Amino acid sequence: MQPERFNGRIGVIGAGALGALYGARMARAGYDVRFLLRSDYDAVQQDGLSIRSFQGDFVLRPPIARTAEELGPCDLLLVGLKATDTEALREILPHVATPTTAVLTLQNGLGNEERIAAMLGALHPDLPAESRIVGGIAFLCSNRVAPGVIHHIEYGHVRLAEFSGAATPRTRTLGRLFTDAAFECEVADSLHRIRWEKLVWNIPFNGLAVAAERADTRTLLDAPELHATVRALMFEVIAAAKGEGVEIAADFVDHMIGLSERMGPYKSSMQLDFEAGRPLEVEALLGEPLRRASAAGVATPLLRMLYGIVSRRERLAAGE
Amino acid sequence: MQPERFNGRIGVIGAGALGALYGARMARAGYDVRFLLRSDYDAVQQDGLSIRSFQGDFVLRPPIARTAEELGPCDLLLVGLKATDTEALREILPHVATPTTAVLTLQNGLGNEERIAAMLGALHPDLPAESRIVGGIAFLCSNRVAPGVIHHIEYGHVRLAEFSGAATPRTRTLGRLFTDAAFECEVADSLHRIRWEKLVWNIPFNGLAVAAERADTRTLLDAPELHATVRALMFEVIAAAKGEGVEIAADFVDHMIGLSERMGPYKSSMQLDFEAGRPLEVEALLGEPLRRASAAGVATPLLRMLYGIVSRRERLAAGE
Repeated sequence: MQPERFNGRIGVIGAGALGALYGARMARAGYDVRFLLRSDYDAVQQDGLSIRSFQGDFVLRPPIARTAEELGPCDLLLVGLKATDTEALREILPHVATPTTAVLTLQNGLGNEERIAAMLGALHPDLPAESRIVGGIAFLCSNRVAPGVIHHIEYGHVRLAEFSGAATPRTRTLGRLFTDAAFECEVADSLHRIRWEKLVWNIPFNGLAVAAERADTRTLLDAPELHATVRALMFEVIAAAKGEGVEIAADFVDHMIGLSERMGPYKSSMQLDFEAGRPLEVEALLGEPLRRASAAGVATPLLRMLYGIVSRRERLAAGE
Repeated sequence: MQPERFNGRIGVIGAGALGALYGARMARAGYDVRFLLRSDYDAVQQDGLSIRSFQGDFVLRPPIARTAEELGPCDLLLVGLKATDTEALREILPHVATPTTAVLTLQNGLGNEERIAAMLGALHPDLPAESRIVGGIAFLCSNRVAPGVIHHIEYGHVRLAEFSGAATPRTRTLGRLFTDAAFECEVADSLHRIRWEKLVWNIPFNGLAVAAERADTRTLLDAPELHATVRALMFEVIAAAKGEGVEIAADFVDHMIGLSERMGPYKSSMQLDFEAGRPLEVEALLGEPLRRASAAGVATPLLRMLYGIVSRRERLAAGE
């Protein structure tokens, strides 16, 4: 049985390579999607939002807004901000979040849902915030190649889960947004599980890419000591996940390594950010997982070393 | 009872910040010291070897040679080469090593004595090579500031031990070379011990200095995750030493940390080499200890990660 179709206004906050792609494809599928744009506003105003995808190119002329006031109240907020920009929501939410607005965050790493819940809670202290938040993980290879121009290179499937527990009809309705937009979407019963499973890959391949200096997946897998370190980090992440009650089977490591070997040289998002001099998602991808492991009494010495090295390099790059 | 005074010709191979300083002070103490010089030959020929030391400045006009042939046979070779240059001895030894020449290597890390023994063995296959080799560790802060000009900033004490076993009268005679030159010198009974004890400090502070990007001792001690990693690496080195039969007490870690905290911001040799774009002593300081630990069945995952990162950065810096 098909889940109910989402019926309301969708506001895309963080319309970069990820948010603009998903939002544009949902709009093309007939949903009411509006985009909050800053640096890309003029380009999209003039030429529309251009999607160049291996699944088909199109240009969209969607409703856009330059400010949160202009965007106005939405029924669903699709958050595609970098984890380093989550704080920007503090100024945005008061203008766009009603007491019933749902927030679907597709951001990387740990800690984003908690921060958004705190902001929603501060807006409407009498309403439960957690139950309005859904977390998602995007397996996507996409770049913003120019203002208003997105190049969708490969993949695109999504896993969604409620922040507050098992999947509900609402979660499946949000899942249908993606399938209607022609992406695969899995609705899961544990946000913890899908976030930690993703971290098994993200922590070694993002962190070591920076620590070992512009190292793509092939580079990390080809050097014996780095390959062994990737695997050892994956086992640390599995132990940390277990500390938070998520059991991930040990053979998941072989599965992730096999997948990475088959996908060819791939630059992780943190490597791309580092090369471009952009802020790194150090806290969401390394710092918060380390703190969770530590709070659960799980020793993760390699992750600690990785976090120490990458956060130092991040501070140096920022000129501190 | 004073050990017998060394009576013979000393050839300094690798007359940089370390070799030139020790050699010059021995020459000033009346020993017959000659220097093999390459890039510094003309400067020393013209202006002498200039020692600027916190213990007193002086200029020496020693016998110098531009080639190993010109240097000729010596009774003792004082090797101050970087561990990355040990291979240069293969061309030098045939001209300077007689069947009774002793070799005192003050190089960093593990593996140098073995390589020198193999070279001596190839020269005189019928003579035992091991017993002619003495290893030394210099605790020294010294820079070559210009051709023929050495700035001796601080410290200078030395630990010596026979490659083939316990100290002998010959070891003590070599120790006297240093004490006559007004350096403290300890003659030890286990080269393994003194090399591994030094590695407890060298591995974290040299390796992380590069992995965490130009990080001096203060930087590494001030960042909580890096400080914890320094300590964890020290415990791994102690475990690796134990795998080779060397027991180092756990409180040696506190001792080394305390020492490092008191000495203020200090740039390790690997950091200085990295900043100057010179080859790094990766194999002697990280690779060989990792291989020894692995051969002894001791897991050192942090050292493995460190070696993976630093050797990758070294290859990148070398333009590979």
